[in-house]
Order: sequence, then structure tokens, then C-alpha cells
Amino acid sequence: MSSHLQNDLLIRAAKQQPVERTPVWMMRQAGRYLPEYQAVREKSDFLTMCKTPELAAEVTIQPVDIVGVDAAIIFSDILTIPEAMGLSLEFVKGSGPVFDNPVRNIDDVESLGKNILPELEYVGKAIEQTVSQLNGRVPVIGFSGAPWTLATYMIEGGSSIDYKVAKKLLYSQPDLLKRLIDALIPEIIEYLDMQIEAGADIVQVFDSWGGVLAPAEFEEFALKPMTLIVEGLKTRNPDTPVIVFSKGARTHLPSLADTGADVVSLDWMVDLGWAREQVQDKVALQGNLDPAILLTDPTIIEEETKNLLSSYGDGFGHIANLGHGITPDVPVENAKAFVQAVKDFGIKEVNC
Amino acid sequence: MSSHLQNDLLIRAAKQQPVERTPVWMMRQAGRYLPEYQAVREKSDFLTMCKTPELAAEVTIQPVDIVGVDAAIIFSDILTIPEAMGLSLEFVKGSGPVFDNPVRNIDDVESLGKNILPELEYVGKAIEQTVSQLNGRVPVIGFSGAPWTLATYMIEGGSSIDYKVAKKLLYSQPDLLKRLIDALIPEIIEYLDMQIEAGADIVQVFDSWGGVLAPAEFEEFALKPMTLIVEGLKTRNPDTPVIVFSKGARTHLPSLADTGADVVSLDWMVDLGWAREQVQDKVALQGNLDPAILLTDPTIIEEETKNLLSSYGDGFGHIANLGHGITPDVPVENAKAFVQAVKDFGIKEVNC
Repeated sequence: MSSHLQNDLLIRAAKQQPVERTPVWMMRQAGRYLPEYQAVREKSDFLTMCKTPELAAEVTIQPVDIVGVDAAIIFSDILTIPEAMGLSLEFVKGSGPVFDNPVRNIDDVESLGKNILPELEYVGKAIEQTVSQLNGRVPVIGFSGAPWTLATYMIEGGSSIDYKVAKKLLYSQPDLLKRLIDALIPEIIEYLDMQIEAGADIVQVFDSWGGVLAPAEFEEFALKPMTLIVEGLKTRNPDTPVIVFSKGARTHLPSLADTGADVVSLDWMVDLGWAREQVQDKVALQGNLDPAILLTDPTIIEEETKNLLSSYGDGFGHIANLGHGITPDVPVENAKAFVQAVKDFGIKEVNC
Repeated sequence: MSSHLQNDLLIRAAKQQPVERTPVWMMRQAGRYLPEYQAVREKSDFLTMCKTPELAAEVTIQPVDIVGVDAAIIFSDILTIPEAMGLSLEFVKGSGPVFDNPVRNIDDVESLGKNILPELEYVGKAIEQTVSQLNGRVPVIGFSGAPWTLATYMIEGGSSIDYKVAKKLLYSQPDLLKRLIDALIPEIIEYLDMQIEAGADIVQVFDSWGGVLAPAEFEEFALKPMTLIVEGLKTRNPDTPVIVFSKGARTHLPSLADTGADVVSLDWMVDLGWAREQVQDKVALQGNLDPAILLTDPTIIEEETKNLLSSYGDGFGHIANLGHGITPDVPVENAKAFVQAVKDFGIKEVNC
């Protein structure tokens, strides 16, 4: 499947197969910390960049060229799905994404668009262009938001600190939330499947806000939908690895390892070695340097990256990454120092 | 020690002694959800309320009278200590607390005030007035912020979403952060000791932002200082129970139970029964209803409270509370429904 790739370290590590070196990429690596990204961003707004395959492909490939990561994650946004379902999305400076028409009742849920793939064709095209331009240098990662995370934005009408509107709805009208989530699941499966068709070698499902749920609600509204999505994807694309990321999930790691995903991506609040004990090599692990470490300097970054690599230990199921997205204020040389440290100290003995 | 109390359920539960009923109070119970609080707040700004013992005592007692909680937590703010150490504190509408002169280098740390108790006399006076007016109806809870949480505000210069300034300093100048924390520890001990002298029957240390730290940093900058504070308090006041609260601590619960504290207060992201297994009855547990549940209605609140009580199970070491502070938009009748549900369904069999 990944025979077209010159560098397939990420794919092999995701499958816990032998690798000569730990692969590395960074969440939000196609982003504002790169002057080359900002140059593109100055000329187009964020949504236009997402929706213009040439621009999306350009910034997707930038970190491969500039920072030397082992994979390109398609430049896009998790809110493309809610928008394609009919919510009018705007990015307001200072307050982030805003939906004018949030989902608050059953009519709102029922009037959401179904079978929205045609609306999202631009993502497939961006992936096709990226794959074609990369020409097998590194794998391409597709992604989607998870149902609970998308639902919080759709209900709140934008970003939130405490998710009170979404959680009030969860506790007072759980059936309504369930219908919203049930509406999202097939769309997410179709969307990721389309990305794989377009050439994505691996996909990641981001549940950014799973961690704000109490345990029983996490299971019902985050874990179950995630499991259904992985199942749906695996039925159609058994060979394409799936990564799940649930920020703040900590105590739920064993459950995430049971979703059927190949890789669980970790935030920085858990120790990588401890996490490995929790999941018992059932999955590969991705992560989990505290992104704040990239604000220091190359010497500290190298030291902390060495610690990270040795905390995973022997074996092949580790994908080096941050525990959350890289922030705009990271100096590019610091991002490079992280990637270089993995390349220098992530060498593995392959006996086969 | 607590012989002056007509209702000492909280004190006995904190010591895991037999109680006829699970005690209940709510973090931030003296707060904006109460019209009676807002009436006081309309006439005085927040800091004036903290610093005027009559006003502080008045709002401290309100939830005992109105909502029927089993304890009164002194109305104050965790930022009283940084302010007394010389940082000029302002509460700016919309952005919360702001320090004009944040702590960023060694000179800033060295110029912080020491032995600041005289500056905080108003808190002692507020407790004395509260104790005198309550006349033993319920215990009074004193509190302080924990060193890491206070340090984040002092370094950031106010509230923060990602604590980047504080964490950059943590990773790049750990010795500087350590000096700041070492400067805070004795002041916190003195401050809580003074509150106990003034009549507080129990004290709580709030580490609101412990959960944003990676595990090794949590141990060094949150757990160790917390342990030293509990030790300092216990040396002088062996009979006064100490509660520690570290939001987002989850996987660190066994370590928190080893601090020497009597009670570990839980956020809502862990299951109470699971937490009890983690701490093995070494400590009592406080919490942990999702505060968002109070946004629903009395029927749902009663149901969820019953579930909470039964998830603790038999035995006497449970103090019912929320997993975080009550929010301003909670209807008073919902707060009452929570307290009443604990009173109705928290009855215990005492065999002695």
C-alpha cells in the first residue's frame, strides 16, 4: 500500500513494524510559526486557503521542506464538516471560529445537510495535489474532528472555555446530543474515506475536547462514536492506519486502545512510558512533548526530546510528535531542533 | 477541637469518622449565582468585599442560610497572597485578575515581600467575624492557592489559557521558578495557620492549574510544594484537616493521597468510585458533580446526585461537592436541589 513512499517510517511505526528511526511530525505543523505560511496567509483568509487546493497543498508541504518532518498533514480545519452540513462558518479575529446558526434543538439537527461529500471535494483535491507534488517523499495524513468535538462547536456556536451550552444540553437532552452525534458519524467516515481515496496514507481523528467530559459521558459521547468511526474506516480500508487523539483522555487510554485504532496520540500530561504500560503494545503511541518546550532553546529541546525517546524505550511503535499543536510564537529553529533531535537520537536497531 | 460545632459532619467526614449523613458544600458557593451576593457586590468591588471583614462575613454566610450547605468557606481570593507580596492586583471586567508588574526574572522574585501576614490581617478578621456570627452552626473553611497556581498568575500577569509564559520559564529557567515557589511556600503556610488561629475549622489548598503540567513537572512544581505545605500545617495544627484540590490531576491521585492531606478534592473528570480505589481509603474524597449538571433542572440534579453518592459506596470518607466552582448562571433552586439531594439520599448507617 505504501510502496509509493520513499519515506514510510510513519506508516510502519503506526503498524508497530520495524523502523530504522522513530518518525516525527508536529500537530499544526502547517501553521503560523512559519514565515512562509504567513506569506500565503497574508494574501488569503484562512477559509480561502482551506478551499483552494493549490494554496492548501503549498502550505501542507512547507514543513516537509523547511522543518524536515516525516509526514505532511493536509492543511484544513476540523470545522469543514459542520460548515458543509449547513452552519455558516466565519473566523473572527480574536474569537476564532463562529457559527451564526448554532444547533440547539431537534429542528436544528434535522435540518443539517446529509451526504455532504460533494461540498468537501476541495479537501480531496488538496490531497491529490499534495500527493502529486510530494511524489512519494513522505506520507500524507488526512484528518477529521471527532463527533463530540464537532458537536461542541456546533452547539456553542464557536470556541468555548467551559462548554457549558454543550454540556447543559448533554445532561438535559442526551437524546438530542445523541442524534447530533449520530448524524456526524457517517459524514466523518465518508469524509475520511474520501481523503484516503484521494491519497491520504493515514488518517487522524481529533477529539480535542473529549477531556472535559465526566467518565460515563466520555464513554457514551466520545468513545463509542470514535469506535464506530474506526470500525467504518477499517471495513473499507483495512490497510490504512488510523490515529485517534483525545486531549485530556489520560485515564481513558486503555479504552482508546480498544477502539480498533492503530495509534493513540497522547497529550503532554501523561508520561509516554506509563502510557505504553496502559495500552500494553495494543496500539502504537504518538506524542507527546509539551509544546511549551519549543518556546525555550535548541539545547533544552534536544535534552527533552532525548528524554521523550528514551521514555518510550525499545520497540517500534512510537511516532514522535508534540502533545498538542505547535503555537505561532515558536521560533522555526526550535521546531527544527525538535525534528533534528528525533532524527539524531531516534535511531533504532532493526534485527530481521 | 470541633466541639463548638452543632454540625461537624464535614470535619468528621474529612477524618473518615462515622457520620449520620454525607456533608455537602460547593466550591465558590459564596458567589454570583446568589441574588443576595449580587446585592452586596453592586455596592462594592470584588477586592473591597474581600478586604472588608463585615462584607466578607456576610457573603460567606449567605449560602449557609439560603442554600443550606454544611460549611461556610471564607469569601476571599487566591490572589491575596501575591498582592500582599507586592504585585498590584486589579480585577478588569472581562479579563479577570491583572497584575501590572508580573514576575519574570530573579530581581522580580527577590523584591517580593516576605512575612506578609500583617497585610492579610483582613482575612483573619473576616474569619473571626464569620465564626462569631455563625456561632457554631457549621464549620468554617479557610483556603489558599497552591504555589504553582499562584506562580502562574504572578508570571503571566493574570489569567491564561495555555500558561505559555509560565511554562516557558519552567522549562528554560527551572531554578527561577523554584525560587518563586520556595518564596511562596512559607507564606502560604503562615497564611493558612493564621486562618486556623482565627477560627477556620478546616483548610483547603487549591492548585487550580496543576493539571496543565507534564508528569515530572507536576511532581517537582506542584506535588512537592503541596506536600511541604501540608507538613508545615500539620506540625502546628495536627487536628485541623487539610483538603488538597488539584484540577486535572487524575493520574496523580495516589500521589496527592500521599501528601499527608486528610482529603483529596476531585474534579468531575474522574469517577468517584474509581478514585476511591486509587487512594485506597488513605484519604477522604471530596466532590465531584460536574458543575454543568447544576444548569439542568432539579429532577436531573437529584438523579445525578444519587448516582454520585452511590458511586462512593459505603464508608464515611465522602464530602459531597462539585468538581469545580459553581457558575454564576446556576439557578438558586438548582443549587438547593443539589444540597437537598445529598441531605435526602446521603443518610448513613452508623453502627457504634
